[in-house]
Amino acid sequence: MYEVFYYIVIMPFDLTILGSSSATPTANRNPTGQILNFRDKLYLIDCGEGTQSRIRQNRIKFNQIEKIFISHLHGDHYFGLLGLLSTYNLMGREKPLDLYGPPALKQVLDLNMRITHSAWRYKLNFHPTNPLESECIFEDNKIAIYSFPLIHRIDTTGYKFVEKEKLRPINRKMIDDYDIPFYAINRIKEGADYKMDDGTILANSKLTFNPPKPRSYAFCSDTVYTETILPYIKGVDLLYHEATFLHELKDQARHTKHTTAKQAGEIAKKAGVGKLIIGHFSSRYKKLTPLLEEAKEEFENTELALEGRKFEIEAHENN
Amino acid sequence: MYEVFYYIVIMPFDLTILGSSSATPTANRNPTGQILNFRDKLYLIDCGEGTQSRIRQNRIKFNQIEKIFISHLHGDHYFGLLGLLSTYNLMGREKPLDLYGPPALKQVLDLNMRITHSAWRYKLNFHPTNPLESECIFEDNKIAIYSFPLIHRIDTTGYKFVEKEKLRPINRKMIDDYDIPFYAINRIKEGADYKMDDGTILANSKLTFNPPKPRSYAFCSDTVYTETILPYIKGVDLLYHEATFLHELKDQARHTKHTTAKQAGEIAKKAGVGKLIIGHFSSRYKKLTPLLEEAKEEFENTELALEGRKFEIEAHENN
Repeated sequence: MYEVFYYIVIMPFDLTILGSSSATPTANRNPTGQILNFRDKLYLIDCGEGTQSRIRQNRIKFNQIEKIFISHLHGDHYFGLLGLLSTYNLMGREKPLDLYGPPALKQVLDLNMRITHSAWRYKLNFHPTNPLESECIFEDNKIAIYSFPLIHRIDTTGYKFVEKEKLRPINRKMIDDYDIPFYAINRIKEGADYKMDDGTILANSKLTFNPPKPRSYAFCSDTVYTETILPYIKGVDLLYHEATFLHELKDQARHTKHTTAKQAGEIAKKAGVGKLIIGHFSSRYKKLTPLLEEAKEEFENTELALEGRKFEIEAHENN
Repeated sequence: MYEVFYYIVIMPFDLTILGSSSATPTANRNPTGQILNFRDKLYLIDCGEGTQSRIRQNRIKFNQIEKIFISHLHGDHYFGLLGLLSTYNLMGREKPLDLYGPPALKQVLDLNMRITHSAWRYKLNFHPTNPLESECIFEDNKIAIYSFPLIHRIDTTGYKFVEKEKLRPINRKMIDDYDIPFYAINRIKEGADYKMDDGTILANSKLTFNPPKPRSYAFCSDTVYTETILPYIKGVDLLYHEATFLHELKDQARHTKHTTAKQAGEIAKKAGVGKLIIGHFSSRYKKLTPLLEEAKEEFENTELALEGRKFEIEAHENN
């Protein structure tokens, strides 16, 4: 008898939190920074002060970082960037680096170069983000990356990382039973039916299994509670959403264009995401459990985006 | 019998090292930052990335910092500045802050304000330094502070902090013996002789003791070996001088406009300082003992400027 041969390598897609603090670092919380590992290519998302030290502490390889995404130009989201870029210079980085962020970031880079009379020794490709419209900012055959507008005190964008549809795993037993030739396999993996010599059509669904659903991650750094983001984050497997305050400070949240933990939970529920992680906690909160509990009342599958935590991005059914 | 009443309060004058690394932070070394405590007023000297976290870790009170001195605009000396200044905004700092540094630092501050549409909520007084001449940049009745030119790849200044001459401690026995009235004491403390009713002159040296020598500290952040700095640092009690490399890399030191440990020792010897501390170590050195030993061969009283170390600035005789 044949065994069903059903073996799929799940490529890594996970998120490591480097910082969870808002505005100013506290004794044990750092400003925003995250490392997204997508199939062993690393993306750095925001880069608060001290991020390069945290990369080192988490034993993440600097040179594996291929792209950097900056949400906005408040210091707690980018004051570590110039230091990291300078370290790449000193380390003799050769491979290009793609940097996505608000247009004004170019001025920061240029001023630093002017006053230090220096130049990047590697190719630094700066891609300004559009603060008004969602755009696909990168795409290859494995992933598509989007920016989308958040609503904060200054131009701010979120980012969404969407794995591409995978090839369909082959049902080896059927392939053998029908003696399907090797040259036809790739098209069948892509979803094609197979026509036998006698004209019979074998439906693709008989020859393959459903692939795991493509996984997705959305990052909403600093934003007031706004349902305008729902179309961009709908059904993602993992959503990071800021939750600077408890809901008792909802007026302050609205005034400073931040979100409360309860509101972050509401957004997750309305967007039908798989899991929510909350972060960007105000330094007034020594204990974070109340924030977690508040969000969980709205959306049970919530966790705290604490320093050093790693979240696997697991596919979930998206109805 | 009278006891000699000789009591002098030695006011604190000490230096805490926040960072000793050159260029890029290592696992256990941070970029340059120092806190000089002068009579419980704190001066921050250079402010590499992460300095505000180190201030916190060393339990130094943010609000006690009255002045900040930036030597030059290489990132490892100032990439922590905007973060610290922003934290002051968030903490609701009210008292003014004096900031000394290269003229171009103004552009960095202005750009940050422009892109964040914000303003400092406290008075930030920026004083541009002169990269070509030594200048007295601050003076009151307790201290005089000077900038002086170093020679590096970009405009760089050192800083010297010189305690003012102290009042002469009164010899109480003599004052009582000669029944000198209270109103005359202050002038005697300042060095005046005293004329008795019968016309006899009592020399000040009979009425007072010598005060402790005024103490001084000089900071030479990044510089090639240059004897042009000797007039500015001559005879200081404590000298910080960079020592990026071992002398076997003297060509690289000259090329990158840095100093070797041996050269730092030579400078200390030629300047006749009390004590030398060396820092700004290249990340290639895992162990720092060879750098220390090399400097000590030239100037015995040398120590390493390691993270968290505190150096009392002790007066020494200056011949």
